[in-house]
Amino acid sequence: MHTSTALLTDHYELTMVDAALQAGTAHRRSVFELFARRLSGARRYGVVAGTGRLLEALAHFRFAEAEIDFLREQRVVSDATLDWLADFRFSGDIWGYPEGEVFFPGSPLITVESSFAEGVLLETLALSILNSDSAVATAASRMSHAASGKPLAEMGSRRTGERSAVAAARAAYIAGFSATSNLEAGRSYGIPTMGTAAHSFTLLHDSERQAFEAQVAALGTDTTLLVDTYDIEQGVRTAVEVAGTGLGAVRIDSGDLPVVVARVRRLLDELGATRTRITVTNDLDEHTVAVLAAAPVDSFGVGTSVVVGSGSPTMGMVYKLVAHEDATGAWVSVAKKSADKASVGGRKSVRRAYDARGIATTELIFLGDGPGGEPEATGPAGATERDVLEPLVIDGAVKSGHTGAEGIAAARDRHARRVSELPHVAMSLTRGDPAIPTEYR
Amino acid sequence: MHTSTALLTDHYELTMVDAALQAGTAHRRSVFELFARRLSGARRYGVVAGTGRLLEALAHFRFAEAEIDFLREQRVVSDATLDWLADFRFSGDIWGYPEGEVFFPGSPLITVESSFAEGVLLETLALSILNSDSAVATAASRMSHAASGKPLAEMGSRRTGERSAVAAARAAYIAGFSATSNLEAGRSYGIPTMGTAAHSFTLLHDSERQAFEAQVAALGTDTTLLVDTYDIEQGVRTAVEVAGTGLGAVRIDSGDLPVVVARVRRLLDELGATRTRITVTNDLDEHTVAVLAAAPVDSFGVGTSVVVGSGSPTMGMVYKLVAHEDATGAWVSVAKKSADKASVGGRKSVRRAYDARGIATTELIFLGDGPGGEPEATGPAGATERDVLEPLVIDGAVKSGHTGAEGIAAARDRHARRVSELPHVAMSLTRGDPAIPTEYR
Repeated sequence: MHTSTALLTDHYELTMVDAALQAGTAHRRSVFELFARRLSGARRYGVVAGTGRLLEALAHFRFAEAEIDFLREQRVVSDATLDWLADFRFSGDIWGYPEGEVFFPGSPLITVESSFAEGVLLETLALSILNSDSAVATAASRMSHAASGKPLAEMGSRRTGERSAVAAARAAYIAGFSATSNLEAGRSYGIPTMGTAAHSFTLLHDSERQAFEAQVAALGTDTTLLVDTYDIEQGVRTAVEVAGTGLGAVRIDSGDLPVVVARVRRLLDELGATRTRITVTNDLDEHTVAVLAAAPVDSFGVGTSVVVGSGSPTMGMVYKLVAHEDATGAWVSVAKKSADKASVGGRKSVRRAYDARGIATTELIFLGDGPGGEPEATGPAGATERDVLEPLVIDGAVKSGHTGAEGIAAARDRHARRVSELPHVAMSLTRGDPAIPTEYR
Repeated sequence: MHTSTALLTDHYELTMVDAALQAGTAHRRSVFELFARRLSGARRYGVVAGTGRLLEALAHFRFAEAEIDFLREQRVVSDATLDWLADFRFSGDIWGYPEGEVFFPGSPLITVESSFAEGVLLETLALSILNSDSAVATAASRMSHAASGKPLAEMGSRRTGERSAVAAARAAYIAGFSATSNLEAGRSYGIPTMGTAAHSFTLLHDSERQAFEAQVAALGTDTTLLVDTYDIEQGVRTAVEVAGTGLGAVRIDSGDLPVVVARVRRLLDELGATRTRITVTNDLDEHTVAVLAAAPVDSFGVGTSVVVGSGSPTMGMVYKLVAHEDATGAWVSVAKKSADKASVGGRKSVRRAYDARGIATTELIFLGDGPGGEPEATGPAGATERDVLEPLVIDGAVKSGHTGAEGIAAARDRHARRVSELPHVAMSLTRGDPAIPTEYR
């Protein structure tokens, strides 16, 4: 696998650079915005994820010899453009919603200010990362709330691409999950990993008892035994016989869970294993988690639904040129005019408005001031406003605090805080309007 | 990014190896099967993709110092198991459906015969790759048929994880697409790449005419001009004025396509650009492609829908232990008993049955003979049967022809051939039963 991220890019980004360099327009200062026209799946709010990964990928966005050779052989661009690409280092500014923040239709999640050529080159990579990571985080956030404080583990690696699995584990953790099954996510991002055994382990052995004995011998009594390979009730009895009443947990991966869980809890208690926890993992999503939150379940393992965004595997974000300098150096706001894909031109800054109780009321998008501008605050008594955009890259240098384990920890805290500020309707699992309106000023 | 694929693995695969090594059961010869219980999205057939990628990933499935250090620090397994992992090289056999082949519920797409420990380690990686790549290929195959021979380009990189995008381009190409926008897919797999310009390129310039002039100057008149940034009719006129009647193509990315396309074709013809092609790219899926196949569209660009599997982003494949040697060395067939997740134990071989006209009639799964066995053929006069499984890895050595560009070319040919052998109902875009039944013998 190549380390450079520069070819994780659509062919047309390079032909545009080529043509603009030849036309003398490539160096016009430009502003690109990454945003979602609507919230996929009619969610009530979106959760930003991937920002830290994008900043990390930016450091590897280099056209080294191997990349240049490929572009030359395929005649993707002219030789002059190859020279320009070989020297390319992103030198502009990026402002954005920090990772873990919530967002709404039109929110400018990433604002890139640079030459046209530098900004357009980042389009595909930025969208790939933000669209997929935010789809996972948005679904994971709903599940986190539905679980009512009970821990959730992400276990969906097998249901998404092998590298997307690592990103999904990271996004779910930011949105409130407490662990993942994915070891590479543990290694790359420091996310706690967990897991004990699958049905195949029980089936390998001559009896369920022999399998449990082998597992307890290796992993201790504070392990999780999978009790539903054969008969669940017998599985629970055998588990407690083998591990004793100090058994850590039992896992249930099939059946009508609310009924089964209640029975297993009663049985564990009867057997004296009153502190043995119950974890469930059977094709859960936010709806089944919500149903089970009231049952005697101690933790959830969520697989497929979280890594595929629970019905919305991508966020539909776009990356649009919203302003640029013209031939005279004057700024021009631009936007495509087609009715079904209209967008709002011009640089923007964002404040979130809160009522006197600290509940978010409106996403205020100010036109014309550009990122970091200071729009005038207005509102009823006690109301406040908060700047949302943060500098992520200035003059090509990545600001600290957004990447690595530090960035993930900050994003996880931020997510919890921002979700807690949303009005109650945000927690509805039904399809509907965004929890707060977006207002352009 | 780490080169080793060994940690793209669920934590529990390693704890199972750990416990089984300690119990003395890890070395029992075992057979694991990767299959789908049903076809996601009630598709009529599935398309196998990812096999070549899995074989390539297998070569990098190594626990080197960096991986061992992480597992030691996190105390995932015991020191003795770390030693075993450090020496791990897959030494077993893998049989499977070759890439591009079609499949049905229960089809054993991958059969791994090895020690339990070696086979269980591959579970997560094999499922990640096959589930996601096959979901894309299955959707892409429907689109290829719907396009009635008109070329399709995959352009969805921005709507899936940045590495999944490369795999998706590969899977779509196997399933009949002719090109991709993804440059890394061009570099890594030799897939033709294409693309010219986005709306931002037009918006950057002082006028649409100036943008078209810049593009034609750089890319020649045989380029594709995007004509819908402002007014489509004016865009077409300007395009032909700038490039002449030798203009390669115009691209339309918005609007009510059947109507717009017909108008643009008439206008191009009126302007004398009778050989200028029309390509469309507006949120297409197999249904809209089918509608447009009769319109004067020359080629399609498909984005989101193909990379997210058109409503079925993962295939729901599982990887199950189906047989193993017991303590005495005798083979035992095994399967989980739970009603909702039952599977068929035992080693299997597969033949596809055909009628006298060469149309597939049944997927015959023979129990007990194991991969490569020679089941007895039976059937009406003129009917034939064909072995489906092929050896992919023997004694740890990957068989030639399945990986790299060679593997992709073979898979693409195979896909076209196998789809052409399916009964007509397979081409239905409605939800329904598999095109042919699966029969166990």
